[in-house]
Formats: sequence, C-alpha cells, structure tokens
Amino acid sequence: MHPIGKICSPYKEGRDIPIQGIFNSEAEAWIELKDKYAGGLKDLDEFSHAIILYYFHKSQSEEVQGRPFLEQNKHGIFSIRSPHRPNHIGLSIVKIKKIEANKMYFTEVDVLDQTPVLDIKPYVKYFDSRDNVVSGWVDKHFKDGNIPDETILK
Amino acid sequence: MHPIGKICSPYKEGRDIPIQGIFNSEAEAWIELKDKYAGGLKDLDEFSHAIILYYFHKSQSEEVQGRPFLEQNKHGIFSIRSPHRPNHIGLSIVKIKKIEANKMYFTEVDVLDQTPVLDIKPYVKYFDSRDNVVSGWVDKHFKDGNIPDETILK
Repeated sequence: MHPIGKICSPYKEGRDIPIQGIFNSEAEAWIELKDKYAGGLKDLDEFSHAIILYYFHKSQSEEVQGRPFLEQNKHGIFSIRSPHRPNHIGLSIVKIKKIEANKMYFTEVDVLDQTPVLDIKPYVKYFDSRDNVVSGWVDKHFKDGNIPDETILK
Repeated sequence: MHPIGKICSPYKEGRDIPIQGIFNSEAEAWIELKDKYAGGLKDLDEFSHAIILYYFHKSQSEEVQGRPFLEQNKHGIFSIRSPHRPNHIGLSIVKIKKIEANKMYFTEVDVLDQTPVLDIKPYVKYFDSRDNVVSGWVDKHFKDGNIPDETILK
C-alpha cells in the first residue's frame, strides 16, 4: 500500500473535525493526487459523490473494541468508525465539487489535513445506497431524522 | 497492511461473480476473522448492512484508465470499480445475516472465494446513504430503475 496523494482540508486538529462530513457541509477540501494518477480522474466529474479511502495517519493504536464519539458504551471495532482500527483505513462519502488536473475538490469533509489517500471510487447509487437500513447503536442518536446534539469531536 | 481474515464465497472464478452483489442476492458467504479480532464483531449484528474492504489478490495489474464491465468505453480508474487499481482495495456493501464467534455471514456477495479482508465497517444510513445521487456513466445502464442486461462478469 502506498499513498496516491493527500487531502488538503481546513481541519488541522482532530478536535475540529465533525463526526461525519454531512454535519458541516460548508467546509471544502481537495485531494491532490500524484501527477501520474491525474488521468484516473477522467469522467469522475459526472458523478455527484465519491467514496474516498485514506490512511488514519495520526492513530497510534489498534483496538478490538472502543468507544464511538456519540456515546460512552464500548462496541466492537467493526461496529464503530473509530480510526484506532486494524489497518487504519478510513472511508468517507464526499460531494464532488469540481475536478481540475490532478485535484478533486469536494465538500462534506470529515478528514484531517495532509491525510494520505489510498483510493477514490465513484459512489454509485445502485451499488452503494440501500433501503431498509438498520444502523444498530447509532439509530437512537438520530431520533426523527434529526442530527445528534453532539456532532463535533471534543 | 495485513489481512484480518478471509472471505469464504461460492464464487471460485472471476467469471462467476455478479458485477455487484445485489444482482444475485441469494448467494451467501462469510468472513472468517483471525481469532484475535473476533471481539471486534460485538454489536455488529444489530446492523442490517456492513461495508467490507478487501484486497483484490488476483489482480496483477494497475491501470490509470480502464473499461468497466458494463461498457466498452474507457474511463479513469477512479470513476470505475475495476480491481486493477492503485492499491487494489475492493469495497462492497453486504447484508448481514448473522454473526457467530469469529464469523460474519452475509448475502449480496460479489467477492471471490479466499479474498483477504482488510476491514469491516458498519453501514450507517446517516453517513453512507445519499439522496440526489448522480452516477455518471453508470446511470444510462439502469434506465427506469431496472438492472442492466449484463450483470455477470464474462
């Protein structure tokens, strides 16, 4: 595994980052790919959203269970989105704004500045959206479709 | 990066695999985690879906542009879901059936048998589903919400 580029984001510290990018949809960021990968962005501007995979480079630990940001209860690491996970791979769905040369500009950002990027995939509604989703321990924090009281990392 | 387990799937050859697991929702598979990660599955059974990340271990090439399975036109590698991509990371949304000890059983499978697993994340509708998605070159293959004529790899 090797970085294919990096993320330039307004979030310089973990405590500034919203729990998910949808909670501060005004923030803008971009991915700057290594020049040799610029051609890989062809036609991605015809998609509204992308899945970005990146390396949680600031995490120094690997847990099997942990506490998510929304509550104090411990859960298995595969039922939370914590960075302190085996292989430290992060995933975000972002909204594509524009593509210029080797840069993809996007909103709905929840990633730290200078994060190494591992992959970009097109978000395809037929593959990636699902109806009748049950979201386990997370559901109780989103009563009536409202966002939770606490949406920023402390 | 290291495998945290492997996928046991009915698909032994690439040509048997549906383009996405939703096209053969009857097929069943499971992830068998290394014993030390079994505790990481705690509470994942309360979610209906999971995001699995895996290594495309059969891909021998890395392309910057390529042809997707649904058409002959070339696209940037970051606007298609081809395995022949930088870092060879695959991603699928699967439907969780049950969890027993170090095994997660699931349907909506589109992965080759013995594929090394890199991560499992809970699919959270508030983070991972989006409305008003535009899916670029893919949209024309799903007219009126129907699945395309060709849904199995050849």
